[in-house]
Amino acid sequence: MKSTFLSQLAQRSNEPAISWLMRLTLDHPKLISLAAGFTDNNSLPVSQTLRLVEQILGGKKPGSSPLQYGSTAGDPDLRRLTAHDLALLDGHAEARIYSADRVLITNGSQQLLYLLSECLCDPGDIVLVEDPSYFVFFGIAQSHGLQCRGISMKDDGLDLDHLETRLSALKRKKQLHRVKMLYLVSYFQNPSGVTTSLKKKAEALAILRRYEKDAGHPIFLLEDAAYRELRFYGPDVPSALAIEGAAERVIYAGTYSKPFATGMRVGFGLLPKALFENVYRIKSNHDFGTSNLLQHIMARALASGEYEAHLADLHYRYARKAHAMTQALREYFPTEVEWLEPAGGLYVWARLPRRLKSGVKSDLFKSALKKNVLYVPGELCYADDPTRPRPNHEMRLSFGGATQQEIGEGIARLGRLMARSLEHKAVIRAIRAGKKSPVTSRKKVFTLLRGRK
Amino acid sequence: MKSTFLSQLAQRSNEPAISWLMRLTLDHPKLISLAAGFTDNNSLPVSQTLRLVEQILGGKKPGSSPLQYGSTAGDPDLRRLTAHDLALLDGHAEARIYSADRVLITNGSQQLLYLLSECLCDPGDIVLVEDPSYFVFFGIAQSHGLQCRGISMKDDGLDLDHLETRLSALKRKKQLHRVKMLYLVSYFQNPSGVTTSLKKKAEALAILRRYEKDAGHPIFLLEDAAYRELRFYGPDVPSALAIEGAAERVIYAGTYSKPFATGMRVGFGLLPKALFENVYRIKSNHDFGTSNLLQHIMARALASGEYEAHLADLHYRYARKAHAMTQALREYFPTEVEWLEPAGGLYVWARLPRRLKSGVKSDLFKSALKKNVLYVPGELCYADDPTRPRPNHEMRLSFGGATQQEIGEGIARLGRLMARSLEHKAVIRAIRAGKKSPVTSRKKVFTLLRGRK
Repeated sequence: MKSTFLSQLAQRSNEPAISWLMRLTLDHPKLISLAAGFTDNNSLPVSQTLRLVEQILGGKKPGSSPLQYGSTAGDPDLRRLTAHDLALLDGHAEARIYSADRVLITNGSQQLLYLLSECLCDPGDIVLVEDPSYFVFFGIAQSHGLQCRGISMKDDGLDLDHLETRLSALKRKKQLHRVKMLYLVSYFQNPSGVTTSLKKKAEALAILRRYEKDAGHPIFLLEDAAYRELRFYGPDVPSALAIEGAAERVIYAGTYSKPFATGMRVGFGLLPKALFENVYRIKSNHDFGTSNLLQHIMARALASGEYEAHLADLHYRYARKAHAMTQALREYFPTEVEWLEPAGGLYVWARLPRRLKSGVKSDLFKSALKKNVLYVPGELCYADDPTRPRPNHEMRLSFGGATQQEIGEGIARLGRLMARSLEHKAVIRAIRAGKKSPVTSRKKVFTLLRGRK
Repeated sequence: MKSTFLSQLAQRSNEPAISWLMRLTLDHPKLISLAAGFTDNNSLPVSQTLRLVEQILGGKKPGSSPLQYGSTAGDPDLRRLTAHDLALLDGHAEARIYSADRVLITNGSQQLLYLLSECLCDPGDIVLVEDPSYFVFFGIAQSHGLQCRGISMKDDGLDLDHLETRLSALKRKKQLHRVKMLYLVSYFQNPSGVTTSLKKKAEALAILRRYEKDAGHPIFLLEDAAYRELRFYGPDVPSALAIEGAAERVIYAGTYSKPFATGMRVGFGLLPKALFENVYRIKSNHDFGTSNLLQHIMARALASGEYEAHLADLHYRYARKAHAMTQALREYFPTEVEWLEPAGGLYVWARLPRRLKSGVKSDLFKSALKKNVLYVPGELCYADDPTRPRPNHEMRLSFGGATQQEIGEGIARLGRLMARSLEHKAVIRAIRAGKKSPVTSRKKVFTLLRGRK
């Protein structure tokens, strides 16, 4: 009997990179993981959550609702508070776009990304993504048979010229009708750490709009703001919702997982009206609503000020840990390695010299694992886009889960491996060029060459 | 611009019947709802949950895991306890099928039904369902473009002859390769209240097996046991997992929502190994894991005995409420109406005389709503199966959410409406037949006729 019982979707669903990384962690119990997007275990709001649950359940008589089914779209208080807080963040308290009836509560923002992919895209459809971008999104896209097309990044976000070039090429190839959305991780991007300015978001939206006529339908801007509230330096940037005409084109995906507790898995979307009902229906089929208990906890956290207070604490912690990481990078990484000083989020994105490969099959990745250090190879953060080679010389380094001591030690080990590898390469190049090796001892050269096999 | 941005799936996703029913509830604030599958608000484990959260969060130092991400498959303790308890329920504590590594924790069992539909079925594939069955499942099937084919029910479960006839007809039409699974709600079925015997489940599985060669792949038996633990009379029936050869064919879908707290939304599946990895990958794309906090609460509830104690309380409550409902049915419903005495679950399924329509467009449904009583019209519980007419003379009555007083009052109102409607029909038939009306007053006859418009 052939094993043809799996659907097309199941056949397309690969093992998620995250599972593979987690297995590596389990197989190496002494591992320093700079890979996981975990938040700091010591930062988790344990006493706060207990207090909130006591307030929610302790004061009430039996018969109250946190333990009953809620409605599919979410708890009315949480929807209202979410819309309200978003309006305040964006400085647009009066604008009608920040309306509770556009808010859908989801199981983390991940579920929203899934629902939107289901709602907007058929197999073969195209999603424009940042190059690099959030690798778990690629898993969703892959399973739905979507084509991701990467848009280059600059240090301040999308390369708008490249966006324009992409779209006009797709127009020429009569593929524009396939383009459903542009996916932006706009705050302290996972993995690059880049924050996109409001101006750039507005320009990107304007570019999308110009191609809609040829596409024959709206092209949505999906703004994933997962890291927005993990900002420890500098001013906040308004979301794309603040752009003129955003109401029918911008989808805002937010979460309470990262800024409060990842173990909660409560996220949300603020959606254009034309989409809301459709996404809602799919959510209804998924689970007819996120856990009411979790929603009540989050609503209480927001209303009581516990959420804000916890954020302030998080900012302080992450600023220190980010500082520990960049200090270690300066101390231990070869000077050729480039990175952005993080102002928020959980990641530093390190660009190695191009001759130093960082991918899952690279010597560096393997030797790092032998030295019990794990990073996310940059190549995993690039969509499967046949129109460009996949870069293989970057790494995502998380300062979220590890302790400051682990960060220092992990970066030191990585730095030493890189230095050694660069030295190897210099020696080999010198030998090949017939030049005198910069390394004097013959024995050392042979050791180096042997180590390269 | 045409509005063609929606996917095929989104275009197929109808407004769920549940939303429509909930809206009716909101529009009629004085409504007695015998429709919702809600559990009894007064039965919710408020103090228990508070105690469990205190144990989980109170005793621990910051840094503990309930508030951190968990793993996609679920919390190891909850998976182990789930497998163990299932083995005990089935009386097969030693059997290897009850293994934690086959258990996937989901957002209610609803999510498992969704994941399985995604994993096994492409548009056009066929799912065999009980006739009637759980209407929310039809929404999932519809959105994925699946064809549901109804198998008639007897008072002890599936009509096996009909299952055989169906499969052989599908074989003749060369459609067997499309058949992916048989969906059974096997305990106190939603909506009919029927429990399927182990023997019948084994026979159904054997029948499916006989058609696998022609199908070219396994045909799975999906056993939805959502109401299993809401059993207040009689012995438990082992699940289909207890059948010889079940390991690679039976998918068991269970939940902690109904038996503990619907506001939790924690369900689970026990899956064949050949399926587990694939369903897991899709779950990983959905949300990479159910809330760790909720899972810790449930694991603690199971391990501490709070769960068992709460179940005993639930059984007592529901037995009383079921009794209140059947007593009211006997008192107020016309004698021609048939129902099964419930021994568990949340529903009574009432079969009216065929001439008395109960559907959403029926006089009975509308007049019931005017009298502030809501039931689930039986027609909603039948899949969209073009091979048979959709029955329209049944109603699902829930004793879950309503109070005993509401149950009595709601049933009384429905009974009076039915009696009146049957009287109308008798009068009209008599007039049409030219016989003397059983109703003596001319005025009353005209009133009745007018009322029928």
